[in-house]
Amino acid sequence: MAESVMEYLQSLAPIFDREIEKTIPRDRKPWEVYGVLWDFLDRGGKRFRPAMVKLSYGAVGGKEAAEPETVVPVGAAIEMFHNFTLIHDDIEDDSEMRRGKPTLHRAYGLPLAINAGDGLFMMVWEALLKAKLPPEKLFEVQRVLTSAFRRVLEGQAIELNWYREGKFDITEEMYFRMVEGKTGALISASCEVGAVIAGGSAEQREALRNFGMAVGIAFQVQDDVLNLAGKEEKYGKEIGGDISEGKRSLITIHALGHAAPADRKALTEILAAKTKDREKVGKAIDICRRSGSIAYAAEKARKMVEDAKKGLLILPNNASSRRLLQLADFFIYREV
Amino acid sequence: MAESVMEYLQSLAPIFDREIEKTIPRDRKPWEVYGVLWDFLDRGGKRFRPAMVKLSYGAVGGKEAAEPETVVPVGAAIEMFHNFTLIHDDIEDDSEMRRGKPTLHRAYGLPLAINAGDGLFMMVWEALLKAKLPPEKLFEVQRVLTSAFRRVLEGQAIELNWYREGKFDITEEMYFRMVEGKTGALISASCEVGAVIAGGSAEQREALRNFGMAVGIAFQVQDDVLNLAGKEEKYGKEIGGDISEGKRSLITIHALGHAAPADRKALTEILAAKTKDREKVGKAIDICRRSGSIAYAAEKARKMVEDAKKGLLILPNNASSRRLLQLADFFIYREV
Repeated sequence: MAESVMEYLQSLAPIFDREIEKTIPRDRKPWEVYGVLWDFLDRGGKRFRPAMVKLSYGAVGGKEAAEPETVVPVGAAIEMFHNFTLIHDDIEDDSEMRRGKPTLHRAYGLPLAINAGDGLFMMVWEALLKAKLPPEKLFEVQRVLTSAFRRVLEGQAIELNWYREGKFDITEEMYFRMVEGKTGALISASCEVGAVIAGGSAEQREALRNFGMAVGIAFQVQDDVLNLAGKEEKYGKEIGGDISEGKRSLITIHALGHAAPADRKALTEILAAKTKDREKVGKAIDICRRSGSIAYAAEKARKMVEDAKKGLLILPNNASSRRLLQLADFFIYREV
Repeated sequence: MAESVMEYLQSLAPIFDREIEKTIPRDRKPWEVYGVLWDFLDRGGKRFRPAMVKLSYGAVGGKEAAEPETVVPVGAAIEMFHNFTLIHDDIEDDSEMRRGKPTLHRAYGLPLAINAGDGLFMMVWEALLKAKLPPEKLFEVQRVLTSAFRRVLEGQAIELNWYREGKFDITEEMYFRMVEGKTGALISASCEVGAVIAGGSAEQREALRNFGMAVGIAFQVQDDVLNLAGKEEKYGKEIGGDISEGKRSLITIHALGHAAPADRKALTEILAAKTKDREKVGKAIDICRRSGSIAYAAEKARKMVEDAKKGLLILPNNASSRRLLQLADFFIYREV
């Protein structure tokens, strides 16, 4: 099933990428904005947020013929916002690599990378203004998205501050508040605006908003699981990278709350040290496993997605709603 | 006259500041977004861009009673965008101080400062959506502003790249293309959207757009003049700071193109060294003065504003249009 979801996403990606090219002209000058952005955008990505817009739209009865002028520009705008957050997150975390190449600030310097990210955020609005929607619908899409963007940036601020203050006494409640913003809000909004564009009922909007939120959080939690317990050749990143980054994930937070005192002390020290020492990283992963924290997180993600799928039962049973259920499963059972 | 313009701007500022508080709630959490932003916004600023929106609106016959729900939110949004660019520019230039206090990235670290700036940019759109305008008018305002934001960020990229490449062979044409974007586009758009909101004619829109562009560029050129030839106690910043930053201004570009070969070599070396040595900075200012470059820039700014004022003669002669002419003069004859 995972393969077919990936193939499906790959089949949609060029539609949104062509739309992005309309708003971010490849050959426009200065190269320091447009060339830098295309270096980043050409690296790919699953483009699953715009796919969620399209599927949510279809799930509540949106007409396929209207997609090119409605869900495609809106989906492109959301994908652009997502990439904007990646560019700035990479700077804020001073990450070295993104999608197999140096991050933009490592490649072109901090000033141009910040500015190119700002340019991408600006063009999100131009992409939205290309959507041919009745005014009240377009304003509603703008309102849903600004509200989501606000939560994304608030979630990012919360997480950044944990690093800045070296804070490890984080409750699961605090963690979920952070991740609902940083990761959940945009996927939730992707689903909700699909329903808005299709003219779905308040009940359908709510179901899709909740579905997107659950899937978004589950996606992040599963990503954290794969980071510590995945197969490196499938996952594509170094296993244990989150430990080296000192990341506060559901797994490490659970482990810090449930491990024996000696393990807790050792785990805190390893996370605070931000070490790449394989032995220490391996020890931290062992502690997480022994505390049942990896299994706990995986089960939590699975349960969230199962609940989220039930919420979609109010939608018409059609190809798009079935595809949404399949996507939800993919997030949990994926190895990539 | 300068005093009365400053008093006028000061009388308007609280109106826009209260509107900004509606979009950026002071007490909202996390403090890492809202508290950080208010640390910056509370430092003040002339708020002259929103004043230009209001005056342009009034100059083409906009009704005062409608201002609180139309020009005030739009003016607030523009002021927010301006402050967003200052926050990110300070990071990109690694400036130490802004309005008498440490820049945000120096005070709170790079990650939170980038993220707070992003949050401010996001809230620009929320402020705009608060405007109670007929849909087509609000979309037009959004289009004019996204287009201006694009030019601002393009202009910034061009200038950043001059620094990055250590480039000094810059023509006046290249300089004006940069400054039209970086400084002119937003003031131009401030004037134009005032006319859009008031339902001004295409001719009135164009006159105000051109006026704003000329005034914006003249403002920047005059700022560069004051930086090298102003009175420190009035200007409020260290005289010659632009030399220490190696800035490519109309003055230094003109001097590099017109100074004697020995002077040109000396000036290039001083600019490239980014030195704070008072003797060297003084020597660079002398070269600029000897080359006639300070007088050239001052005259250029004066001429631009005179031409811009003539363009406004097509507008009704009322209190707002007269105030616009007064503001234009202020930009040129100001010492602050």
